[in-house]
Amino acid sequence: MHLLIIGGSDAGISAGLRARQFDPTCEVTLVVADAYPNYSICGIPYHVAGDVADWHSLAHRTQADLEAAGLSLRLNTLATHIDPGAHAVTVRTADGGFETIGYDRLVVATGAGPASAGIVGLDGPGALGPDDGVHQLHTMDHLHAVQRDLAARRPGTAAIVGAGYIGLEMAEALTRRGLAVTLVQRGPEVLPTLDPDLGRLVHDELDRCGVRVVTGAAVRCIERGSNGPVVIGRRGTDEYRVEADLVLAVTGVRPNTRLLVEAGASTGPAGAIAVDDHMCTGLPDVFAAGDGVVTAHRLLGEVYLPLGTTAHKQGRIAGENATGGDAVFAGILGTQVVKVFDLVAARTGLRASEATRAGAQPRSVTAVPDDHKAYYPTAHPITVRLTGDAVTGRLLGAQLVGTYGTEVAKRADVLAAAIHAGLAVSELCDLDLAYTPPLAAPWDAIQAAAQLWQ
Amino acid sequence: MHLLIIGGSDAGISAGLRARQFDPTCEVTLVVADAYPNYSICGIPYHVAGDVADWHSLAHRTQADLEAAGLSLRLNTLATHIDPGAHAVTVRTADGGFETIGYDRLVVATGAGPASAGIVGLDGPGALGPDDGVHQLHTMDHLHAVQRDLAARRPGTAAIVGAGYIGLEMAEALTRRGLAVTLVQRGPEVLPTLDPDLGRLVHDELDRCGVRVVTGAAVRCIERGSNGPVVIGRRGTDEYRVEADLVLAVTGVRPNTRLLVEAGASTGPAGAIAVDDHMCTGLPDVFAAGDGVVTAHRLLGEVYLPLGTTAHKQGRIAGENATGGDAVFAGILGTQVVKVFDLVAARTGLRASEATRAGAQPRSVTAVPDDHKAYYPTAHPITVRLTGDAVTGRLLGAQLVGTYGTEVAKRADVLAAAIHAGLAVSELCDLDLAYTPPLAAPWDAIQAAAQLWQ
Repeated sequence: MHLLIIGGSDAGISAGLRARQFDPTCEVTLVVADAYPNYSICGIPYHVAGDVADWHSLAHRTQADLEAAGLSLRLNTLATHIDPGAHAVTVRTADGGFETIGYDRLVVATGAGPASAGIVGLDGPGALGPDDGVHQLHTMDHLHAVQRDLAARRPGTAAIVGAGYIGLEMAEALTRRGLAVTLVQRGPEVLPTLDPDLGRLVHDELDRCGVRVVTGAAVRCIERGSNGPVVIGRRGTDEYRVEADLVLAVTGVRPNTRLLVEAGASTGPAGAIAVDDHMCTGLPDVFAAGDGVVTAHRLLGEVYLPLGTTAHKQGRIAGENATGGDAVFAGILGTQVVKVFDLVAARTGLRASEATRAGAQPRSVTAVPDDHKAYYPTAHPITVRLTGDAVTGRLLGAQLVGTYGTEVAKRADVLAAAIHAGLAVSELCDLDLAYTPPLAAPWDAIQAAAQLWQ
Repeated sequence: MHLLIIGGSDAGISAGLRARQFDPTCEVTLVVADAYPNYSICGIPYHVAGDVADWHSLAHRTQADLEAAGLSLRLNTLATHIDPGAHAVTVRTADGGFETIGYDRLVVATGAGPASAGIVGLDGPGALGPDDGVHQLHTMDHLHAVQRDLAARRPGTAAIVGAGYIGLEMAEALTRRGLAVTLVQRGPEVLPTLDPDLGRLVHDELDRCGVRVVTGAAVRCIERGSNGPVVIGRRGTDEYRVEADLVLAVTGVRPNTRLLVEAGASTGPAGAIAVDDHMCTGLPDVFAAGDGVVTAHRLLGEVYLPLGTTAHKQGRIAGENATGGDAVFAGILGTQVVKVFDLVAARTGLRASEATRAGAQPRSVTAVPDDHKAYYPTAHPITVRLTGDAVTGRLLGAQLVGTYGTEVAKRADVLAAAIHAGLAVSELCDLDLAYTPPLAAPWDAIQAAAQLWQ
């Protein structure tokens, strides 16, 4: 059995590894568009910041590891066409020639690419690029371009367009590299995946660490100026302009779907490829997984929410099912966490606004308990917001913001497990959670919040 | 309505506070045997270590806080007799006189006291005490005695009998105070609430930090020697003796049950007071909670397992039900965590040996993944052992050991939530857990362990 996988990032590699585990007799070929299979794209900001000295360390596994696991890698090889009837994929090889590879089963894991969010100058003819000091940041090639630019031109100022996860992490990274950073955000607050008053806590941390934050600024275009790139947009009724030596546009991603759409696959939210809970595309013997496909959300149904954790899970399921398994994707809760300087912000499930849009009647409670007993050194307050269904009492979501080291991420995980299992908000008080004064209180911080619900 | 509560520690205070929340019209009197209501006994080692400068900080709440919440405190007042028929409690007041206090409802939260574990010299006539350099450690008075002894005699060596939580924490505390500490443990390994090979990791940490650990030493007696106290027992076929300037005997606790037993209450495991899931004792209008009562374990049924977290939960339920509520104690999982120098060890649910004794067919898997992506600084391996039911696949228990700061405690909490909800081991892989390279991996450490199960 020959399993062909298009894509060498989280979903593709997970599919290949799981396939080899599940059916050690299967032959697995991975077609990888660049030279960087299994790299941790989420680690890019930490190499820029200097936390990770050698970019090679960003690989989850080395090429040798992958080959030892039985994966046959075709690097610098771009899939250009899928013929599902013939069970064949056309690829352009590193030397520019074309080749056809047959398959018994196919997993498409082509991921996502940077979205320009309608900003003129980021794509199309005449688009600005690294030579202009304008960067996007979604691949190892992008990383190398940024690093080359930082080393060669030694820019003193940077403008980052977009204050989502990567924008925030890069604001920290470039600040720590010594650049004066302006972070430009379209919406009213940074980190729009949190409620704005909680995003404000992240905003305050950016302020404290010297990042200039500009919210409510809708960027229209990026142009070449006399001293370098210029970001131009509107802020309220005024024109907004910021010049910087280096501009980083990180305004989200869009799914890479051309191959499968041309092959006849259906699409769902955000134009991502539709898959069922087995990661089947509906095309015969063709599975898909990762940032290019829709995701089942346990509380919302089908959404597009590209995350590395989801890509790993979906890839594993695709790999198992492509080799004869019957694995079911359990769906996600949109759990996410980001570290910004000394602050950590996490969320899982739904915010009240999202729950309302989904037709629920949410109620939220917010507590600010310490992460552990105040008498033990280094206690810090954590902001915990729980959102539940006012009718059923069921826990729907949680948002937490706290100092790095206060175990905010794992507390979000406790709440993710509780939502997954369908627990009520009040049942959080029943959970038997671990207590010792250096690490918690007899009622953990999340239980202190849950007690406000009652 | 007059609610009388005997006991001013976790369960008693929780009962009182909840009663006043649930029925603000109720009158609540707390009879407290000593002068220290609502002190965090779990914090004692941190005062000895010097982490907590002022012992007053160990109070969860001040006396003024408690009074502001509507609790009427009778300090230094010892309850000596309950007359359930007359709804009256006799107390000995601070001045030595006796008084009778009537009640409509009574909550008994008399806790536990140190158990001497059959060691001659710890109780009875002629028992050794603080004047001999021999201490137990269960109350604030005990703490003060230890601190006075450390200040007055400046002991250079200490022997700690018992390597459970308090013994381990005190081994760290006294080492950090500059004493040469010998930790004497009856069983084959320290921290017997973990599997011995995991307890060995804690043993290694004690070794690393200069604590002399002696396992397999069954202490028979503590005697007055010519230079101070002597601990005498057997180790294998040999007599074992250790002399020390200061001896700390921390060999567990036994429930304080005399009052309720004399009043006609039933007892259960370890002779603790039997209560139902409403914290009713069976005596009319008499509730009980905390370290003096049995505990419903969600996987084992009725056990005696005194823990601060449980006392808080049971107290809260007793307080609510004593004022007309209908709260049900959901039961515990025996979740526990301890920090020992730079190591944290946690457990929840059952170990394989415990599951076997309970009639299950357990299977365990052990993984040692990093707490977060290895490329990001300060990654450390965590040992994660999951125990499941080999027949049903259900998660039964977990043990985790890792460096302080690796969020071991909250990972145990995720697993506690999963066990509470009845999840299967394999379902842990479905959980949507938070990922960012500084704090986790795309498959969290607990999921890496769960993947070994499959």
